[in-house]
Amino acid sequence: MNVTIIGLGLLGGSFALGLKESQLFDNLNIIGVDKNPDHAIKAKELGIIDQIDELDEAIKRSEMVVLATPVDIMVKQAPIVLEKLPEKALLIDLGSTKGDICEAVRSHAKRDQFLALHPIAGTENSGPEAAFASLFTNKMMIICDHELSDKQGLELILQICEKFQMRVSYMNSKEHDLHIAYVSHLSHISSFALGLTVLEKEQNEKNIFNMAGSGFSSTVRLAKSSPAMWSPIFQQNAGNISEALDAYISKLQEFKAVIDNQNTSKSYELMEEANDIRRVLLGISKTEIKDKKGKKWYQYLKDKFLKPKSA
Amino acid sequence: MNVTIIGLGLLGGSFALGLKESQLFDNLNIIGVDKNPDHAIKAKELGIIDQIDELDEAIKRSEMVVLATPVDIMVKQAPIVLEKLPEKALLIDLGSTKGDICEAVRSHAKRDQFLALHPIAGTENSGPEAAFASLFTNKMMIICDHELSDKQGLELILQICEKFQMRVSYMNSKEHDLHIAYVSHLSHISSFALGLTVLEKEQNEKNIFNMAGSGFSSTVRLAKSSPAMWSPIFQQNAGNISEALDAYISKLQEFKAVIDNQNTSKSYELMEEANDIRRVLLGISKTEIKDKKGKKWYQYLKDKFLKPKSA
Repeated sequence: MNVTIIGLGLLGGSFALGLKESQLFDNLNIIGVDKNPDHAIKAKELGIIDQIDELDEAIKRSEMVVLATPVDIMVKQAPIVLEKLPEKALLIDLGSTKGDICEAVRSHAKRDQFLALHPIAGTENSGPEAAFASLFTNKMMIICDHELSDKQGLELILQICEKFQMRVSYMNSKEHDLHIAYVSHLSHISSFALGLTVLEKEQNEKNIFNMAGSGFSSTVRLAKSSPAMWSPIFQQNAGNISEALDAYISKLQEFKAVIDNQNTSKSYELMEEANDIRRVLLGISKTEIKDKKGKKWYQYLKDKFLKPKSA
Repeated sequence: MNVTIIGLGLLGGSFALGLKESQLFDNLNIIGVDKNPDHAIKAKELGIIDQIDELDEAIKRSEMVVLATPVDIMVKQAPIVLEKLPEKALLIDLGSTKGDICEAVRSHAKRDQFLALHPIAGTENSGPEAAFASLFTNKMMIICDHELSDKQGLELILQICEKFQMRVSYMNSKEHDLHIAYVSHLSHISSFALGLTVLEKEQNEKNIFNMAGSGFSSTVRLAKSSPAMWSPIFQQNAGNISEALDAYISKLQEFKAVIDNQNTSKSYELMEEANDIRRVLLGISKTEIKDKKGKKWYQYLKDKFLKPKSA
């Protein structure tokens, strides 16, 4: 099986390594395409890919093509790659925005050979050196607009997800972009802005180095993320992100007013509400259930929601 | 040696466990004081303390007393405990704000028996169950206004820090509060506000659970922190935090304008600037140094700054 990975950074590289480790395919041959020749050579050296090739040559002999470039590039590449894609081959993307790419191939004659994916996985590092085989293990794969894609392609991806031990969720691409603006894109901007605020204030860097605890490090971690990856994401999802930023800024202003007014009971209350994120991230529902002996249990969101609605 | 810990939560409990593990003192006897009897009993059960006692009884037979209560309580307790402290005994606090407590004991006859400490260590968890012996290992201990404290007390703390493998830094208490507003308190509020924004928007919790990656989890981690601990910190350091919040909000507004205007080159630039936080947190200075062979090195901030200025 020939698989072409376009874009040999953290995501594309990790997907390649994951496929290799899965041993799902006999004679797996991974072809790498990257406009940066240093990345391609490095990816080959690191054993991420088996060979380097030009885009057109690579596509022609592939059963699966993976788009893992920045999302602005992806949107341009998707229709072009589809055009050249052999019959029955599958094109997937791993981008953080789904609306624009789905729109770009909406009326394409080969639309059903494309499947839009967003693996909820990543680190603040980039480039082929940042790739590792287990990046996707136990993570969530969001599959968008799957009803527009061929069933066989979807089956192949579900097989890969199972091998990667990924959970799967199905969403509409436009809904995806709205929710991901809050749950992922906003936290990147909050972190970038925090990094900038502190760097600007603390001209003497030793104060940051000396006073930064694990709390600051954790909150500011995403500020290390790649601008090349994130700048086009912010552009593509501008409307949703702008809305999310408005909500975030007004929440910060509420906090500031409470602090300025020394309203400690209200600040306590706000924080107590925010604490609820612990329960939600653990996947525990608000609803208590009683068993036959009257013992109370919390229902896990996992059980309730995570079975694919359809496949 | 009798040591009294007042407040048996994450910090007080971990300090007690660290002292036990250090084996620095013969016949170490740790007396626990907590207004919550459940905490005191739990701390005894967990082997954090050796006995439970009332405040007055505990102080009078202690060579060291540690304040690890919320900072509003601490400020009231410090002068009272000092009053009752035996001659030559030492009182320390482990609070996140230093201005108010130093002010509260400024003119106290026994001021030199008090040493103001801020260990840059913590987790989002609280209570005696959250305590662990290595919380302070390899962390920074900030010692404030040490020139007002007795040299013997400082020596004892430096010994403990060495055993805990802590780095030590000296600061003025007012300066401490300004800088910590940016490097610690602000990141807590940014995280609380992020948690609230997302919880409010996503009425359907499965969206958060499904779409939250390690990035969101990391940025929102501090939103799990204890309101009882943080509400009085925000009150005491309100002026500095308010200033930091203004700077943060205006940075977010700058980001929002850039995104609204689809100014991708400017958003790239902002993120690239923010990326510099990676270097700063690694403790690498901006200045390159060349060695004799012309090879370039970065100087570590650690080497340059982290030796105590005086002791």
